[in-house]
Amino acid sequence: MAQDQTHPLFDKHINTLRQSVAACEARISWSFHPESPAKRGDAGLAAGREAFEAYRDASFYLDQPGVIGRVGAEQSPYGLPLNISYPQCSADALIVAAKNATSAWVDCGPDVRTGVCLEILDRLHKHGIEIAYAVMHTSGQPFSLAYQHSLAGALDRGLEAVSAAYREMKQVPGRTQWEKPQSKGNPLKIEKLYTIAPRGIALSVCSATEPTSLSWPGFFASLVTGNPVIINPHPSAVLPMAMTVAVARMVIKEAGFDPNLVSLLVDEMGNSSAAMVGLRPEIRIIDCSCDAQTSRWLEENAHETALFTLKSACNCVVVDSTADYKGMLRNLTFSICLNSGQLLATPRLIMISREGVRTPDGTVSPDQFGRDLSFAIGKLLEDPARGAELLGAIQSPDVLTSLEAIRDAASNEDSGTLLRDTARIEHPLWPAALMATPLLVRQQLTDSNEFLNQGLGPLMFVVETATTAEAISSAERIMREKGALNFSVYTDSQPLQQLAQGVAIRVGVTLNINLCGNLLPLHAEAFSDFYASGENPAASCSFIDAAFVARRFFVVQTRRQLA
Amino acid sequence: MAQDQTHPLFDKHINTLRQSVAACEARISWSFHPESPAKRGDAGLAAGREAFEAYRDASFYLDQPGVIGRVGAEQSPYGLPLNISYPQCSADALIVAAKNATSAWVDCGPDVRTGVCLEILDRLHKHGIEIAYAVMHTSGQPFSLAYQHSLAGALDRGLEAVSAAYREMKQVPGRTQWEKPQSKGNPLKIEKLYTIAPRGIALSVCSATEPTSLSWPGFFASLVTGNPVIINPHPSAVLPMAMTVAVARMVIKEAGFDPNLVSLLVDEMGNSSAAMVGLRPEIRIIDCSCDAQTSRWLEENAHETALFTLKSACNCVVVDSTADYKGMLRNLTFSICLNSGQLLATPRLIMISREGVRTPDGTVSPDQFGRDLSFAIGKLLEDPARGAELLGAIQSPDVLTSLEAIRDAASNEDSGTLLRDTARIEHPLWPAALMATPLLVRQQLTDSNEFLNQGLGPLMFVVETATTAEAISSAERIMREKGALNFSVYTDSQPLQQLAQGVAIRVGVTLNINLCGNLLPLHAEAFSDFYASGENPAASCSFIDAAFVARRFFVVQTRRQLA
Repeated sequence: MAQDQTHPLFDKHINTLRQSVAACEARISWSFHPESPAKRGDAGLAAGREAFEAYRDASFYLDQPGVIGRVGAEQSPYGLPLNISYPQCSADALIVAAKNATSAWVDCGPDVRTGVCLEILDRLHKHGIEIAYAVMHTSGQPFSLAYQHSLAGALDRGLEAVSAAYREMKQVPGRTQWEKPQSKGNPLKIEKLYTIAPRGIALSVCSATEPTSLSWPGFFASLVTGNPVIINPHPSAVLPMAMTVAVARMVIKEAGFDPNLVSLLVDEMGNSSAAMVGLRPEIRIIDCSCDAQTSRWLEENAHETALFTLKSACNCVVVDSTADYKGMLRNLTFSICLNSGQLLATPRLIMISREGVRTPDGTVSPDQFGRDLSFAIGKLLEDPARGAELLGAIQSPDVLTSLEAIRDAASNEDSGTLLRDTARIEHPLWPAALMATPLLVRQQLTDSNEFLNQGLGPLMFVVETATTAEAISSAERIMREKGALNFSVYTDSQPLQQLAQGVAIRVGVTLNINLCGNLLPLHAEAFSDFYASGENPAASCSFIDAAFVARRFFVVQTRRQLA
Repeated sequence: MAQDQTHPLFDKHINTLRQSVAACEARISWSFHPESPAKRGDAGLAAGREAFEAYRDASFYLDQPGVIGRVGAEQSPYGLPLNISYPQCSADALIVAAKNATSAWVDCGPDVRTGVCLEILDRLHKHGIEIAYAVMHTSGQPFSLAYQHSLAGALDRGLEAVSAAYREMKQVPGRTQWEKPQSKGNPLKIEKLYTIAPRGIALSVCSATEPTSLSWPGFFASLVTGNPVIINPHPSAVLPMAMTVAVARMVIKEAGFDPNLVSLLVDEMGNSSAAMVGLRPEIRIIDCSCDAQTSRWLEENAHETALFTLKSACNCVVVDSTADYKGMLRNLTFSICLNSGQLLATPRLIMISREGVRTPDGTVSPDQFGRDLSFAIGKLLEDPARGAELLGAIQSPDVLTSLEAIRDAASNEDSGTLLRDTARIEHPLWPAALMATPLLVRQQLTDSNEFLNQGLGPLMFVVETATTAEAISSAERIMREKGALNFSVYTDSQPLQQLAQGVAIRVGVTLNINLCGNLLPLHAEAFSDFYASGENPAASCSFIDAAFVARRFFVVQTRRQLA
């Protein structure tokens, strides 16, 4: 039962693994999956587009056990009719099948599992264009972002997860001979075997807005450490995860294992089974990025599982001074516009001192800053094609409803004042797409900060404080209470940078100092950046630290006395 | 704020660290702290004894904030009057002081913290004899075990914790320069700093029977990763932990840090503050080995903390066949007698097939096996001095009460039958010591297995099953339900060994095959063996896997745009 078997898939991918393990340690800029779809050439793009089209108006094929019907009601935020149905399987059947598949997957050991997982990544990459289209037409992400972030970036995170888990599993040797001298007689000789054992079945509850990028890290980390995974996609974004499951099952089967190691549990719209299935005793790991409510419920109730949640974030920006006012505005406007503010890492709140922003050309008053930011957004979105490719579409009509409520309150000066109004616009290619330009609202900081209980969407709050120091301490309070992934500060003052550094350590956020170029606060690249810290309400885990992988397996020892 | 400071204490201990990190990876037999007190010579032993005596009839000195009185009611299980009082401090004051001490401890970085922790271990080792006496006269452990297990073994586990944490912290570089080519213009250049940040304050709730060995791993893992630690000893075993705190505070102060990084929170007898303090928001890590009830309560309520619990275990033994019947009996009797069965890792239940035990000299019937085991125990304890040094004293009078109830039920044949009666005996050196010889009871396996809900103590159950395969599957059910650290099997059958291996992986226990020499099932050596898996009710963590250390810190990034 020694877990040192070999497999052609491990040999095939060993160079990738070596490079990737080294990249995790160096944390320099390194990527395995090219960011741009252009590398595939026109023929590749066309073939991918065609493959995506083939899924429309069709029954998605998955050879899973326990089928009780078919389900599927995804709506493309771009207005493209999808009409895809998926097999709906009983959770009981998927759990039993996953349990039965486990033993061979454990016995083959870390190397074989790593080879199979790297092959799944390779195969997902081959299906990259159709997956990017699937993300686009479920989450509303513009195609370029869907490809860069939700395909290439997510594949890199998957590779990072496999590599980080490989490193942790390989800390422990497969076997050792233990000898201890005795006061009398021969030394005591014991043969020890060390087996990497999975915790049990993993449940992956996925997001509607970032289906692949927030779930692939946990999926690969669970699978490579020996756990079967049941994927429970958001009913609005099933297709990218169904593709993931189909590819994984195919590769696993080809490699000689039971495909029920990975299965898809589809819910009807508005009827999530995450909570019910999450409490099943067989489920020992849960990754949940679907919504903050479900994550919190699981945190309070699923005590027996290793739980990895991503919830909601109020990422803050403090503007004090800058040597590059235009660069700062450009960075902020891109952050506000990209994907209509629907990424978990999008900044949500800009804080500025009443004393204004110090620049090389003099001090800019808060009012002027508000006008400049508003103008810069207008400028960026001026060209409809570029604007559309930046904004993408709004994932859920609910976002527009709550956006309009905030707009109405601000335009009546019931709550805040309007800095820039939102407007419905038309996508040049997708006339039925749900789109809106960003809303910019000036707000007062209150003790309750009710206005911050907003979800994702094209919405940015600007808040004035007495001083920059007050802005930083208010940001600390807000991020501790509401959660945050990143904290951005524009200042040339060393003491204020140090103050912000203290906040970042206490609250557990990535601190960005003076980002004025193409690196946005919301960017977090695999192999170099940590996504979340797990130390504030935004998330209970980090992509990808040691704890993210180490909690998914344990080591079982066998000690045998030798003659 | 780069965390790459140096410190003379790091340089002093760097060779120890290197050896220990290598030992963790090789998992061969390696120990840094000698097991035998004899190495200290007669003078060293006498000086240590004298140092221990100086604590008796005295006020333990600790310069902690928020003193509200003095408390202390420890009773030596050997009958030695202790009369030691400790300062009782308010949890509020200790929490505030710990918070204030944190920032410098974080800023100095992993190397400096590692140096300081290794110096604490070195200083604890210097005070080794008095600590061993303190363990003996609170937990009831015989002196040799107190020295070997609770001092030398626990120091080795502490060193293992520091080394494992050091390795995980050092996976991430302190800084890197990130460069990414841009489609237009110069590459994007970002300086990235990575800071190891602590989760918050750690609470260590300690055991009465194994005060040091079950708490030092978590204590050192928390401290070296940047967390202040509040130690909440069991009111029956304060002294060893008070000594730990005093030594740690001294070293921390000498190294130029705030001693309130480590403090002692003493409770009055029967009035544990663990639950109340554990729910304080500042407490972000809890290690709890005090009792199963408190651990379970924390698991159900302290959702916001990283929780590491050690509860209770029903470690099983299955006897099928052996090439060394005498060696097997000797191994079993030592396991039953050592420390009067009061270690969490002590086997609790022997299962044997009605078909008997196959040996080279023929088959031994279950009845004969019971008589042989009973006789072997008597033989081992025949010499009063040797018997006393093996059994030690009973930590709590409650153990004797429940032991007598089981004895009465078995002698009336209400529940089980007596294989060997327990008897109160006298310690040759400590006439007032609480002692009892092991009780051996034959029991029927029922669905409820109520008889297994026993705590620690000199008690072993023997259960007959129809076949060995039934014994193994019953053991699986019992260990999954009641929890277990280890599972021992005596069999020359390869298929049965494989069956047991499957059980070990599914339940998460160390499997011992045919241990007939000086390695007992309960032994788990630092650097080679894992103590618990964290995967069954016995414990939610393992000494010491990657998850045990990685969950105690996170990484905060600072990204600064370079010109």
